[in-house]
Amino acid sequence: MQMNPNKDTQLCMSLSGRPGNFGLRFHNHLYEQLGLNFYYKAFSSQDLPGAVGGIRALGIRGCGVSMPFKEDCIALVDELDASAAAIQSINTIVNTTGHLKAYNTDYIAIAQLLETHAVPKDTTFALRGSGGMAKAVASALRDGGYRHGVIVARNETAGRALAAICGYQWQAELGGLRPQMLVNVTPVGMDGGPEAGQLAFEPAAVDAAGILFDVVAIPSETPLIVRGREQGKRVITGLEVIAIQALEQFVLYTGVRPTEEQFQKAVAFARS
Amino acid sequence: MQMNPNKDTQLCMSLSGRPGNFGLRFHNHLYEQLGLNFYYKAFSSQDLPGAVGGIRALGIRGCGVSMPFKEDCIALVDELDASAAAIQSINTIVNTTGHLKAYNTDYIAIAQLLETHAVPKDTTFALRGSGGMAKAVASALRDGGYRHGVIVARNETAGRALAAICGYQWQAELGGLRPQMLVNVTPVGMDGGPEAGQLAFEPAAVDAAGILFDVVAIPSETPLIVRGREQGKRVITGLEVIAIQALEQFVLYTGVRPTEEQFQKAVAFARS
Repeated sequence: MQMNPNKDTQLCMSLSGRPGNFGLRFHNHLYEQLGLNFYYKAFSSQDLPGAVGGIRALGIRGCGVSMPFKEDCIALVDELDASAAAIQSINTIVNTTGHLKAYNTDYIAIAQLLETHAVPKDTTFALRGSGGMAKAVASALRDGGYRHGVIVARNETAGRALAAICGYQWQAELGGLRPQMLVNVTPVGMDGGPEAGQLAFEPAAVDAAGILFDVVAIPSETPLIVRGREQGKRVITGLEVIAIQALEQFVLYTGVRPTEEQFQKAVAFARS
Repeated sequence: MQMNPNKDTQLCMSLSGRPGNFGLRFHNHLYEQLGLNFYYKAFSSQDLPGAVGGIRALGIRGCGVSMPFKEDCIALVDELDASAAAIQSINTIVNTTGHLKAYNTDYIAIAQLLETHAVPKDTTFALRGSGGMAKAVASALRDGGYRHGVIVARNETAGRALAAICGYQWQAELGGLRPQMLVNVTPVGMDGGPEAGQLAFEPAAVDAAGILFDVVAIPSETPLIVRGREQGKRVITGLEVIAIQALEQFVLYTGVRPTEEQFQKAVAFARS
């Protein structure tokens, strides 16, 4: 955070069911490094309308929105950016003198990563998952021009709905498919979850793929990513997703874009 | 503030029409010195119910309330401490898991100062003023057993009402009265006001008094206090009032009472 808070210090915050440390460490570190008079605070709440009303009434500049608030927040803001409107799910609120505009920087981050990792548009892929984050990833793939996809989801209703929105196929299981890119958007491999330490796709499919993309960030070195690295494949990690989405929030709140070096240092600090 | 904010950091705040730096510097300095995981932020608002709703919804631990919100806040909290109930004016909200209890630490500070400065109970006094702060001071005098008082106020309605509540006389002007203690609770002598640099009572009355008490804090060395010091009189300053009321807020929010030395250092830091 900025080292000498005063009456002009601006507050940014996060709102989530289970606050973590990554976002607040990332933002406060950059405020300090860049000499910006901001402070970042993590909140939880049992009263979403009251919390968003507080953002308005107190002039809180920005708010990161996590589970389980990403959909319910939509009715409480004034405007949706295209990134949020596309998937009807938000993760960022920017307050400009009482006008609340919502974004989805997860979507923005996924779109960036497909570009910076130079994933060819004709890549065949399977995306496992059907929740809110799966919607962001699938929509970014669709809008990025990736047409050859399959949604793999045990929840048939959610899986079919997501596939239909994006123009992809749906399957309950991967089965014999061997797509060029595997995208995990489930908690498989996440620490503390019921499937911690597990591989998100069957070994044969992982070994046959060329690109492995896992949105799990804790740890970001999931079994899927580790196995991909061991085989020298192209990997895209959940750490890249949370770091870039946080960076884009930072830019939206402050109007300042850190250098690549400042960004990487903030990511390292936030994880430490 | 605490140097390494994390997800458990608690927020305290102030709400006022024109936020200043004293409170936030005082509180943040003590958090740092005492190693408490708190951060203090100054806010203003055009929407008091929304702001207090935000305190509840976000679990903000405490809130200092200044002009013009001290009376309107009463309807928005759950419980009034005796210090606030006595004068129907609050300056502090403590949030304990969603239950908002309001205090008036100005009243508490005045009562303390009359004691620490050993003002005799039979002291005759004139109190100039009839606003919210005058109510806090007059009530603390009344509840402290000071019976020989006159409220001096040009606003006859407010002056008579305050005098009646406390069992004192009212006069529009001091006139020929020469009380032992003069108490200024008006903006006379305050920087930036229309009567900056002026003496709050006529020179003859000041010279005849033994104790001079001025709640003006910017500057705390008002013409009234300076003249009193020059004559070796007992003086009680507005700086003492705002410092002690802030200290009592700190204790209410954190449950920790700083040492006298820590307190004095925080006051010096907050003024610097």
